[in-house]
Amino acid sequence: MTDYKNREIHLTSRPDGLPVPENFGLIETSVSSDDGDVLVKNIYMSVDPAMRPPLTNGQTKLDEPMMGGAIGRVLHSRNPDHTVGSYVIHRAGFREYHVSDGSDLRTITLQDEPLTTHLHVLGGTGLTAYGGLLVTGELKDGENVFVSAAAGAVGSVVCQIAKIKQCRVAGSCGSPEKVDYLVNELGIDYAFNYKTQDIRKSLREGLPDGIDVYFENVGGEHLDAACGQMRPLGRIPVCGMISAYNNKGARSEGVTTLSNMIYNRVTMKGFVVYEFEHLREQFLTDMRKWMAAGQMKYSETIMQGIDQAPAALIGLLKGVNTGKMLVQLSEDT
Amino acid sequence: MTDYKNREIHLTSRPDGLPVPENFGLIETSVSSDDGDVLVKNIYMSVDPAMRPPLTNGQTKLDEPMMGGAIGRVLHSRNPDHTVGSYVIHRAGFREYHVSDGSDLRTITLQDEPLTTHLHVLGGTGLTAYGGLLVTGELKDGENVFVSAAAGAVGSVVCQIAKIKQCRVAGSCGSPEKVDYLVNELGIDYAFNYKTQDIRKSLREGLPDGIDVYFENVGGEHLDAACGQMRPLGRIPVCGMISAYNNKGARSEGVTTLSNMIYNRVTMKGFVVYEFEHLREQFLTDMRKWMAAGQMKYSETIMQGIDQAPAALIGLLKGVNTGKMLVQLSEDT
Repeated sequence: MTDYKNREIHLTSRPDGLPVPENFGLIETSVSSDDGDVLVKNIYMSVDPAMRPPLTNGQTKLDEPMMGGAIGRVLHSRNPDHTVGSYVIHRAGFREYHVSDGSDLRTITLQDEPLTTHLHVLGGTGLTAYGGLLVTGELKDGENVFVSAAAGAVGSVVCQIAKIKQCRVAGSCGSPEKVDYLVNELGIDYAFNYKTQDIRKSLREGLPDGIDVYFENVGGEHLDAACGQMRPLGRIPVCGMISAYNNKGARSEGVTTLSNMIYNRVTMKGFVVYEFEHLREQFLTDMRKWMAAGQMKYSETIMQGIDQAPAALIGLLKGVNTGKMLVQLSEDT
Repeated sequence: MTDYKNREIHLTSRPDGLPVPENFGLIETSVSSDDGDVLVKNIYMSVDPAMRPPLTNGQTKLDEPMMGGAIGRVLHSRNPDHTVGSYVIHRAGFREYHVSDGSDLRTITLQDEPLTTHLHVLGGTGLTAYGGLLVTGELKDGENVFVSAAAGAVGSVVCQIAKIKQCRVAGSCGSPEKVDYLVNELGIDYAFNYKTQDIRKSLREGLPDGIDVYFENVGGEHLDAACGQMRPLGRIPVCGMISAYNNKGARSEGVTTLSNMIYNRVTMKGFVVYEFEHLREQFLTDMRKWMAAGQMKYSETIMQGIDQAPAALIGLLKGVNTGKMLVQLSEDT
């Protein structure tokens, strides 16, 4: 039997507004090779905007390890489905070791790509973008697409899929560096910094014929501006509303333009990535093909060490990252 | 050749807020039996909330006769499709006589029902309710349904179809008399006066398990309250947003609860009645059956004379009517 020192992040108090470091605790425990059927040593964990509402609405329990996507390597196993040394992905992030019966682990088979891509472009983040745009958003080739939080992990995949589908793409983001990244790295048609530019005016300039698909990551003012510029039969797949997440009840700024949905017969639809599980193989095939062709780029912001996980989440909610925000939990890749 | 004195209502200035009588003019012209291929003498015209936005957005032209659903009788005809004495329905209301080439006229064949029903329960109003609830709203038997403006022409049909489909139905309206009508005449489960009762609290009381379908006629505060109480996979067919129509750009009160659409995977969808044209025969069959069984009641508010058409529209926007607001243009039924 081998014992390992394990550190994990607990929610210790519920944030009121933007979370602060004091809402989180770093707890030391120990795990043993005898625990459970499979002991996983976590390597990378994902940090996502969707983690914010559960901190307030009670889904995230106080004084328990938090949950979130992570990739690790099987260190000990008594489960024949999981061999020692294999990479697995699961939902038990925010801890260095994960004790499992094996049922919550999915094996990752790497091809040419780096391991981290399975936490973003080739993982749930990418599948969210792919399903949300193509299935919920019913994207057609050549349409006019607006993506908010376009330089984020989901947004940047949405932008590139839309470009691959010959769409005209406008994106919003929160810094001049991100504007540059969107236009010059990802090759979208128009990008603007919503902190310094008027959203309505920017949309009229970037998509003068109106919007067929608004991929919604932000809510509030963004939705208020975009909804008023939707074209007939437009679609608004709602992936997230990060502008609302730090507010009580996840309330956004008021949206006043929804009457435009009536005569233009616009559809707005919330979705969750598990709806697209049946598309995973096709998604991986398409994404690897696009990556190989240089049509699907990505950017990562990687913070080091479990103790940085709260800072990573807070930074994400402030928009400090371009592309995917990750925390590396072990050097042992 | 016979000449007829014709009076028609023009929009003479664009309203700022609730329309006032001074925005409209009563213009006297004359028509002749030689005009066009078909001369229709109008009998009843419809007044609808959807008439309000065009007064401001420019769709309704100044100093021309306004448009709206009307039923008349063919007075003269050189078109073999339209025989003298037959009833026709068309979009050229707000005038006593309609000169037509016949292409915009649909013949009405009365069975046991009064003529006026073809302007509400058996007409576009009813088809709006039927298609919006069953097609756009994808209503399933036994669901929890909230209807705003429930005592209005569309809302009252929605309520009754939902009851026929074994749903639990809550409705909002603007007077104690309407609350009584909804509960005691139409037999819905719960009704409240939004002017004196808190919408959120009322919804929690009327539909304690949450809302599967919110049939949206009002917008603003109503939507803000309902959206926060939608159940997983809920639907919000958007028929109208009357609370917004007197505002600049048809802007509603701000809606802040849209983030609830994400995890509950709610769909909100604007629709227009012409989408359901292919269902008209089935709709008429169903509605006549329900009317005969006493399951589909209606109420009418009928004002007399073309000169009352502006007052009817203003009254409708103030909510003075229960059920359908009509104007009778001729005694000659």
